Amino acid sequence: MPGPIKLAVIPGDGIGPEVVAEAIKVLDAVTAASGTVFEKTWFSLGAARFIETGDVLTDEDLASISGHDAILLGAVGGVPGDPRLKDANIERGLLLRLRFSLDHYVNLRPTRVYPGVASPLANPGDVDFVVVREGTEGPYVGNGGSIRRGTPHEVANEVSVNTAFGVERVVRFAFGQAAQRRQKLTLVHKTNVLTFAGGIWQRIVNEVAAEFPSVAVDYLHVDAATIFLVTDPARFDVIVTDNLFGDILTDLAGAISGGIGLAASGNINPDGAFPSMFEPVHGSAPDIAGQQKADPTAAILSVALLLEHLGLAEESAAVTTAVTEDIAGRGSVVRSTSDIGDAIARALGA
Amino acid sequence: MPGPIKLAVIPGDGIGPEVVAEAIKVLDAVTAASGTVFEKTWFSLGAARFIETGDVLTDEDLASISGHDAILLGAVGGVPGDPRLKDANIERGLLLRLRFSLDHYVNLRPTRVYPGVASPLANPGDVDFVVVREGTEGPYVGNGGSIRRGTPHEVANEVSVNTAFGVERVVRFAFGQAAQRRQKLTLVHKTNVLTFAGGIWQRIVNEVAAEFPSVAVDYLHVDAATIFLVTDPARFDVIVTDNLFGDILTDLAGAISGGIGLAASGNINPDGAFPSMFEPVHGSAPDIAGQQKADPTAAILSVALLLEHLGLAEESAAVTTAVTEDIAGRGSVVRSTSDIGDAIARALGA
Ligand SMILES: CC(C)[C@H](C(=O)O)[C@@H](O)C(=O)O
Ligand SMILES: CC(C)[C@H](C(=O)O)[C@@H](O)C(=O)O
Repeated sequence: MPGPIKLAVIPGDGIGPEVVAEAIKVLDAVTAASGTVFEKTWFSLGAARFIETGDVLTDEDLASISGHDAILLGAVGGVPGDPRLKDANIERGLLLRLRFSLDHYVNLRPTRVYPGVASPLANPGDVDFVVVREGTEGPYVGNGGSIRRGTPHEVANEVSVNTAFGVERVVRFAFGQAAQRRQKLTLVHKTNVLTFAGGIWQRIVNEVAAEFPSVAVDYLHVDAATIFLVTDPARFDVIVTDNLFGDILTDLAGAISGGIGLAASGNINPDGAFPSMFEPVHGSAPDIAGQQKADPTAAILSVALLLEHLGLAEESAAVTTAVTEDIAGRGSVVRSTSDIGDAIARALGA
Repeated sequence: MPGPIKLAVIPGDGIGPEVVAEAIKVLDAVTAASGTVFEKTWFSLGAARFIETGDVLTDEDLASISGHDAILLGAVGGVPGDPRLKDANIERGLLLRLRFSLDHYVNLRPTRVYPGVASPLANPGDVDFVVVREGTEGPYVGNGGSIRRGTPHEVANEVSVNTAFGVERVVRFAFGQAAQRRQKLTLVHKTNVLTFAGGIWQRIVNEVAAEFPSVAVDYLHVDAATIFLVTDPARFDVIVTDNLFGDILTDLAGAISGGIGLAASGNINPDGAFPSMFEPVHGSAPDIAGQQKADPTAAILSVALLLEHLGLAEESAAVTTAVTEDIAGRGSVVRSTSDIGDAIARALGA
């Protein structure tokens, strides 16, 4: 890489700053060993910033973040019911605005049951799949409205918008993943009910499939997919799905694989026109914030995804290996957030 | 009851006729003992009928079904990919048309982990909750469309429609259930993203809560709800949610409670203006149809819900008890569809 890599860091709210601190510790450890230089800019965004200034994400924030090579985000969202946040929607105004503005059309969420992790499933089997969740369309577009709000005659609508342009690019990315993995792609939707939204997904998957003859394609309704995620999760290789179904399936995937504390994700703009953003799937968990109770593993694994995205395959693999070994040795000992980060950083030579 | 109860029976496709045969066997057994008389009319509807006649559900069918006191349905849907069904949407044209036309605004789906059943969860705990799924609104309304279909410029939309009228009546029903159970109601939605659709649900739950001071209310985003369904399903008492989230959560609930072969449901019009319809949650499973492999338990438990709905509490309880005892004794012996029905009918005096 020519020159330092510019990294925007958004610790956010709740446990966000704690887990990001450990993720950066690990990033520093692995890059100190390899010589790659990251230049970090910290952004103070989230509920705390809104309460202080009334801003969620200004145009200047967005422009400044856009100028970076990649983004690491902890978690955003205040304490539920905090009256000072009544008029803020941090999720839409910050997280979703970043994903939409930076055209993160691939939301990549790998799931593995790591050796040594206790799954809530009696027999999870050999689970190793990735969900390719569309990130810029579907029911997430914010295309809703209501009339006669608050009256007995209110009607509140919400529109799922799906375009051939938007579906095709994410479907093609998912096939590319399957071609590099176990050659299996499962489309998840609800084509029998959402006939228009489901129809465009089904048609485009059929079309793109012709370009990937080695990839076997199947289809599941979203309700059936949740059944298989608990009865036979090992059947999945790559799942491609829309923004809302992907949200639901990846939380479930996190749960069956032994906890959302291990689930990493990348919000990716594969074209490279905008910086991609890496974040744990978990939320800000205000109830345990500041107590060094959060598991930083998902944030650390998000760093592995970030490194891989930047072409730093060796550093990425080193982080994944260090995490995998750490997980395998965990047993039932409870460690603090920073103890876990320290142990993984130490394994990387820190 | 004055005179016989008029029951419309729709066996449907795939395993539908097999499981309905056992459900009727059990209904006959329990009513022979009690003296209640059911007068049954069989309706041949589903994929087979469409292939033969081109009709899915005619206005005459609907009018005739409407004239009954209750409906028992097996399952509908042909073999996926059957070219003769290319232009049919049996789910929308038959199942959803019945639910919408007969104003089945409550889709009631109880979940229990019966003693003796192997859950895929390592430690399911004491699971006993009911999902009150809205049945006539939300993303299921069929309010979608597309432009430039099949071209690279296609846009396909799907509208979720939510009305104060529609949300309030099902929320009030759900509170009523909670008041008769463990006094706990959980609203599941995605208010942080679907702000309009989620907003109306949240507001109405808050309003109706004032009428039920003994019921404790909480809220979960749908993604978080899937996590709890695998990590702590015993926390739930009554879940109230929209049509699509309810579809997803109840299949997942069926899976964690030991299989969709045990999950019963009622499509209820509480006002009594139209007959309510009872059906197993599972589909038509064409792959195992006609082989006496299907578990008729969900269909039989749907009969218990039907009897309860008709005010026949004793008969309903007798069926539930017979089923519970049968399940407890199942072990690993594989029985045919009719063997299971016979055993339960015999326990009821047949
Ligand atoms: C916080 C919320 C807006 C977000 C989403 O729904 O995408 C989260 O659940 C996630 O999965 O990243
Ligand atoms: C067959 C389908 C239309 C139906 C639904 O989505 O409601 C089914 O999945 C169910 O849950 O009863």
